Amino acid sequence: MIAALELGGTKTVVAIGKSDGTLNEEHRYPTTDPAETLRQAIEWLTERGTPEAIGIAAFGPVQINQTAGNWGKMLPTPKPRWTGFSITSPLLEAFPKVRITLETDVNAACLAEARIGAAEGLDNVVYITIGTGIGAGVLCDGRLLHGALHPEFGHVLLPRKAGDDFAGTCPFHGGCLEGMACGPAIEKRWGQPAHELPPEHAAWDTEAWYLAHGILALLAIAPPERVVIGGGVSQAGRLHEKTEQLLLELAGGYFPAAMNSPYVVPPMLGQLAGIKGALMLTGV
Amino acid sequence: MIAALELGGTKTVVAIGKSDGTLNEEHRYPTTDPAETLRQAIEWLTERGTPEAIGIAAFGPVQINQTAGNWGKMLPTPKPRWTGFSITSPLLEAFPKVRITLETDVNAACLAEARIGAAEGLDNVVYITIGTGIGAGVLCDGRLLHGALHPEFGHVLLPRKAGDDFAGTCPFHGGCLEGMACGPAIEKRWGQPAHELPPEHAAWDTEAWYLAHGILALLAIAPPERVVIGGGVSQAGRLHEKTEQLLLELAGGYFPAAMNSPYVVPPMLGQLAGIKGALMLTGV
Repeated sequence: MIAALELGGTKTVVAIGKSDGTLNEEHRYPTTDPAETLRQAIEWLTERGTPEAIGIAAFGPVQINQTAGNWGKMLPTPKPRWTGFSITSPLLEAFPKVRITLETDVNAACLAEARIGAAEGLDNVVYITIGTGIGAGVLCDGRLLHGALHPEFGHVLLPRKAGDDFAGTCPFHGGCLEGMACGPAIEKRWGQPAHELPPEHAAWDTEAWYLAHGILALLAIAPPERVVIGGGVSQAGRLHEKTEQLLLELAGGYFPAAMNSPYVVPPMLGQLAGIKGALMLTGV
Repeated sequence: MIAALELGGTKTVVAIGKSDGTLNEEHRYPTTDPAETLRQAIEWLTERGTPEAIGIAAFGPVQINQTAGNWGKMLPTPKPRWTGFSITSPLLEAFPKVRITLETDVNAACLAEARIGAAEGLDNVVYITIGTGIGAGVLCDGRLLHGALHPEFGHVLLPRKAGDDFAGTCPFHGGCLEGMACGPAIEKRWGQPAHELPPEHAAWDTEAWYLAHGILALLAIAPPERVVIGGGVSQAGRLHEKTEQLLLELAGGYFPAAMNSPYVVPPMLGQLAGIKGALMLTGV
């Protein structure tokens, strides 16, 4: 039995299926206390059999480096009770022979969009999600990037848009990408949540500004062939088109990869990218 | 016979040695016309034998993706006569059985510093060079990053230092990292070349500002365990220390990797990093 677990900040998904991303059955429930959240997943899986492999897509920061002593543990997070909790231990206790592959939720979603979604067949893909935070999964040369920890794309520092004096909402950096452009930042800046702002609202030019600069940093460091932007905030205001347009202006003809339109695209797998990606992790 | 070729904008190095980086013999000469530059390398090698493998470290932009139809060719570059020139064809003509591994000069230098230099034994290393331009080689998860082309780190767009109204020298982007902080930018901004500016000159605070923001982008995308900064400009003004200090302030406790001091360091292999890295490419 091939299983997958997607641990999100607010909801958890547990599923069985195939390592090509085929989803046979899934169960969604709210993420609560860490031990209880894992207990529910294990109970649901046990009723269905004994998994030989589990792919996990987890919110971060989480130690995904398999050679690290604290592999599988949540790193310091503002989410109460999760810091230091091992995601992998309860699963290994319940299923001693199981093979676990652990990734960030965005890396898993990136893998799914690159294999069967909006960037199908490409080896260099970035998946950005904009919601209560901003994060990115990075597939580069056909492999999901980790590095010293894993990408923390939301915390890149970018040039301010002319005249923009918004302080930003990030408790660590104020005006980093996340601080300037995540859902709560949009609501605080404009006094309305993103989904209430009409497509012609100036908010979307501001949003595109920070995203385009962020993507330019990606092009300069781990150049993607296509960028998928998902998450609740991304669904409004022709954001993908606006971002791509501005990106091409900023690039000044310099990054050939970005000229293959469409370059900045919405996801194709929607809510299923994370759990499908987690299934695929069992075959990586 | 194991051989290596380092093609720089102004000088070329051809060598024989071992794939662990051991240099047995080398020959340095000015880079001129592309065909003539390659001819000299081939002549020097032929006098010594028939190489079974050649590692090439080339200035860019250059197509290093082996599956691309134009593998081995120089991409549009302001350097006269090099655009479209195939570096690999003359070598394959002279030595039909040779196995060629082609990388950017900075990726090769990064590999050498990560294996036997200032970041020995680390799997996540960035090597930045500051000279007439700014470039970076990126080793992430033990592999040299390519992506859609290869990193073009110098062209990342960063927040301006308060009060800095220098227009930048990059013909494509004006005030990108390279436009604000490369050797010619320093000279244009302060009216003196970098090597004449004393360590206490304000130029070095400005330089550290742009470098620290650039390294923060690296931490957010392909997080390195250590950053090596080399190139002529980097030798002055306690630049590594200043950059590391500012980086820690900017990071605001968020990027644990950057807290392992020393984090921003000078190279250990100096002028030999590129050619030693090119030798190592034959074993990758």
